[in-house]
Amino acid sequence: MSYKNILSYKSEVEKELEKRLSAKNAPEILKKSMLYSLSAGGKRIRPCLMLEFYRCLGGEMNDILNFACAVEMIHTYSLIHDDLPCMDDDDLRRGKPSNHKVFGEDIALLAGDALLTFAFETACDINKSIKPERALKAVKYIADAAGLEKMVGGQVLDLQAENKQISIEELEQIQEGKTAALLKVNAYVACALANADEKTTKLFVEYCDFLGRAFQIRDDILDVIGDEENLGKPIGSDEQMNKNTYVSLLGLEKSQKLVEKLTNSAINAIKQATLDNENLCSLALKLAERKN
Amino acid sequence: MSYKNILSYKSEVEKELEKRLSAKNAPEILKKSMLYSLSAGGKRIRPCLMLEFYRCLGGEMNDILNFACAVEMIHTYSLIHDDLPCMDDDDLRRGKPSNHKVFGEDIALLAGDALLTFAFETACDINKSIKPERALKAVKYIADAAGLEKMVGGQVLDLQAENKQISIEELEQIQEGKTAALLKVNAYVACALANADEKTTKLFVEYCDFLGRAFQIRDDILDVIGDEENLGKPIGSDEQMNKNTYVSLLGLEKSQKLVEKLTNSAINAIKQATLDNENLCSLALKLAERKN
Repeated sequence: MSYKNILSYKSEVEKELEKRLSAKNAPEILKKSMLYSLSAGGKRIRPCLMLEFYRCLGGEMNDILNFACAVEMIHTYSLIHDDLPCMDDDDLRRGKPSNHKVFGEDIALLAGDALLTFAFETACDINKSIKPERALKAVKYIADAAGLEKMVGGQVLDLQAENKQISIEELEQIQEGKTAALLKVNAYVACALANADEKTTKLFVEYCDFLGRAFQIRDDILDVIGDEENLGKPIGSDEQMNKNTYVSLLGLEKSQKLVEKLTNSAINAIKQATLDNENLCSLALKLAERKN
Repeated sequence: MSYKNILSYKSEVEKELEKRLSAKNAPEILKKSMLYSLSAGGKRIRPCLMLEFYRCLGGEMNDILNFACAVEMIHTYSLIHDDLPCMDDDDLRRGKPSNHKVFGEDIALLAGDALLTFAFETACDINKSIKPERALKAVKYIADAAGLEKMVGGQVLDLQAENKQISIEELEQIQEGKTAALLKVNAYVACALANADEKTTKLFVEYCDFLGRAFQIRDDILDVIGDEENLGKPIGSDEQMNKNTYVSLLGLEKSQKLVEKLTNSAINAIKQATLDNENLCSLALKLAERKN
């Protein structure tokens, strides 16, 4: 297996997301709006991480596909709400009109609400091989990561930092909530479901943490040096919006060095966690060099 | 015990809601916004129903307070999002400025998201006496009731019916999703947690169904004949907004008759379900006569 193989989970997750949504009896426009954002591409890094961690722990991907879908639904809902006019007011997402541009603000708001709720329904819909007490723990991890102390809290800090000069520590605190929590949760969930020991859990979480920080900095770098066609969005938008980014605070060169350092730290963590680390090592390397 | 006693659960629920929220480490403005709407009054009918059902089934209120809070959080989030400018654009809620009027649209949106997420975190935080497999079933019931097939779906149908003449059947379908689902779920959750038999569950759910329909029609009646001070909002707003209501479709007299009929049906259902029905009977009667 390699990086390519990790991303092969992607199609399984996408199939499962569509299957679960199409089985629902709900107003067509709502389902269309949810599906529009769910199937808008994206790397599916979160569910892929969860499934790969679980495989490393000796588990079978199909047994936890529902949890992987749940995290992807939460990620998708957060993007829809982020793009709304009262938030970032973004017209484009991955090269396509954002959800509210197609379906209107009211439906976009409700599609986000429905995806967040559907995530928990999906997470609770466990396979027979999963123990209910472990599942409950996993659902709680997901709610915690997506909640007021983490993801939503990070959003609020981000709003408060708009048009203000902040420190690198403050930027890290924002990213910790906004981005890192929903990456780390994949380690927590896989480990809870596989009943992994504390040390392994800690190392998997560390891997996610380093990977997530490198990912975010790479994002900020691509907004400066990226290719608009590859990215599916105009470059330079962070600067134009006067956003605090790693590049604006550290400069390009230091930012690139930090990506390399964090990527190495991620690789070190995963090598300590498991001998079966090839896929996760190459994922970290590929993400550090990605063009979009 | 009487109607008054059922509502005595109210203060327990309110204390628990505040306790859980204040224990959280999150941006102050977010917690304030969540608390503003959580503590804005309201009858707390949903959690009171759940706790009373559980008591009727021989359970101890304190064991499921987390589930009762979860349902109230979901109800509260739905009100915040409903009031947003892109939805009903309501400036007032229970006689006070609506959440976005006080905190801004961005924070109101995020407070709603955070409450919905916190609901699931809270529901998963079970008391030791609750079996995890029953808890997982209960959480799934809550997600289903709040989701695209029920509450959010009903919201979408309601949006689609705006400024259109609809039939009484269509109005019932909207209410079924928007209102009834989050009332019935209290029966499903209490019964799942107490492992009640199918017949009892069915009758508790029926009670909620009749009670919810009577409640909604009474709401529509009060919007015509109510007292502004008692209601905390201007009367006549439904007519002004050209909303489809029971009164606009059936007229006042028939609507009042229907409230009485549904209240009797609720009482019949609960009498068949349990001999310990005094509180739930008087709740149904009081709600049918309420002034706000």
